[in-house]
Amino acid sequence: MKKDDCIFCRLANGDIPVDAIYEDDLVKVIFDAGPASEGHVLIIPKSHADGIYDLTNEQAERIFAVAVKVSNALKKAFEPDGLNVVQNNGEIAGQTVFHFHMHLIPRYKGDGVNVGWNPKELTDDARQEMLEKVKSCL
Amino acid sequence: MKKDDCIFCRLANGDIPVDAIYEDDLVKVIFDAGPASEGHVLIIPKSHADGIYDLTNEQAERIFAVAVKVSNALKKAFEPDGLNVVQNNGEIAGQTVFHFHMHLIPRYKGDGVNVGWNPKELTDDARQEMLEKVKSCL
Repeated sequence: MKKDDCIFCRLANGDIPVDAIYEDDLVKVIFDAGPASEGHVLIIPKSHADGIYDLTNEQAERIFAVAVKVSNALKKAFEPDGLNVVQNNGEIAGQTVFHFHMHLIPRYKGDGVNVGWNPKELTDDARQEMLEKVKSCL
Repeated sequence: MKKDDCIFCRLANGDIPVDAIYEDDLVKVIFDAGPASEGHVLIIPKSHADGIYDLTNEQAERIFAVAVKVSNALKKAFEPDGLNVVQNNGEIAGQTVFHFHMHLIPRYKGDGVNVGWNPKELTDDARQEMLEKVKSCL
């Protein structure tokens, strides 16, 4: 369903004109208006979902199939040194528009993009405990 | 196809024993051995692909359908404040194992995870030029 007060619903459904890189019945792909690097695009579903938790199977499948297709086009078009796929859920994770969107960010030497973390230790006990917790929620 | 000298091929196909959170005919989901935060998991296809460019449609669809399913389980199990999906391609992008893997990283206040960039300006001319370039590569 489209939400009339959602900017990405309006962009994805043509209420606000935007140049689409790719479009089908379920998703639209557009350039990020504040790009991290050359060729930074967003994959946006046409039907509203706040974030990853709310996607239907059909949306999820289409989004990542399109991500593979568009990543290959970005590779060919811009010849980047690498590419990050980033999708943020919740303010703490960096989400600013609360309509699901997947970033495809071509990477170039010295581009100043930072996607990283310091690996923590994982004990066998902690892993076992987490395993039981998650499995009971699947 | 499985590659015998690839650690993630061996993990995903059971040559190296590992506790799976979820498994089907195409993918295995395991905890990251050097987690960014509690509940950090990896989705790994069983058939080898270096990165996103090499995934089949079938793999891509399954991977993100499973990402949605497992994200919901992580949300329920650990009650994080947010969640980042991160998938790195190429050394410059932070890829360290050259078998495709998608990170699901639950986020908590003060966890020290950094996923971000400084938005650059995008002129209309630059966008038009990029648009033509990518469209010719799709």
